[in-house]
Amino acid sequence: MTQDQAKAGFLDKVSWNSDSLVPAIAQDFKSGRVLMMAWMNRESLALTASEGYAVYWSRSRKSLWRKGETSGFMQKVRELRLDCDGDTVLLLIEQEGGIACHTGRSSCFYHLLQEDQWQVSQPVIQDPKAIYK
Amino acid sequence: MTQDQAKAGFLDKVSWNSDSLVPAIAQDFKSGRVLMMAWMNRESLALTASEGYAVYWSRSRKSLWRKGETSGFMQKVRELRLDCDGDTVLLLIEQEGGIACHTGRSSCFYHLLQEDQWQVSQPVIQDPKAIYK
Repeated sequence: MTQDQAKAGFLDKVSWNSDSLVPAIAQDFKSGRVLMMAWMNRESLALTASEGYAVYWSRSRKSLWRKGETSGFMQKVRELRLDCDGDTVLLLIEQEGGIACHTGRSSCFYHLLQEDQWQVSQPVIQDPKAIYK
Repeated sequence: MTQDQAKAGFLDKVSWNSDSLVPAIAQDFKSGRVLMMAWMNRESLALTASEGYAVYWSRSRKSLWRKGETSGFMQKVRELRLDCDGDTVLLLIEQEGGIACHTGRSSCFYHLLQEDQWQVSQPVIQDPKAIYK
């Protein structure tokens, strides 16, 4: 077994879904807040592990998505975790710029269910027009 | 619009996938730890909201899965959140018994990537044979 094969072994432990993807949850390493969930393919998980920054797979663009490539808000990986049945990845990350969401909010989970309605519960930190120039 | 229709409105805001499911992340309300990810269909999300305890959809059993129905380790819901594009749910929960994982561990995310291998990083709190009698 070559060194590259040994390194890639952890990718074989992942239960990729029928689209060869795995859901990846990004959690802020310091605050513990869950910031977003996106998807990874084999290449993006390998790159995330080797580069130390989150790389997802954009299902809409069908391409690798280096988080922060446009916004600058990269996610430095502190821990990579896999769940019991190998079909979900958890990333403990440092969110550069403090903004994970494309709406300019710190977290994507800003809709809170209250009285049977999703209420916006987090402020916009930076106007997306200023982020995605 | 009837009261029931008004109550069900929040379910229509969810972007259900091609299997009519949405991924649901369970996070411990107090510690902030991410405990597990499972799936919900429309009925399970409605029941989770109305009953105040997490109800998932078991893809393997193709049936509603009231978390804790066998183990007793129910998840009392403190907050229900939806992400920016409506395709992921986040539950802030109190984990009864302190065990979320069917392996008897507190969290399902007990594999930590170290030196290109997934290492078990959490102890078994209770033997699954004692949990699932």
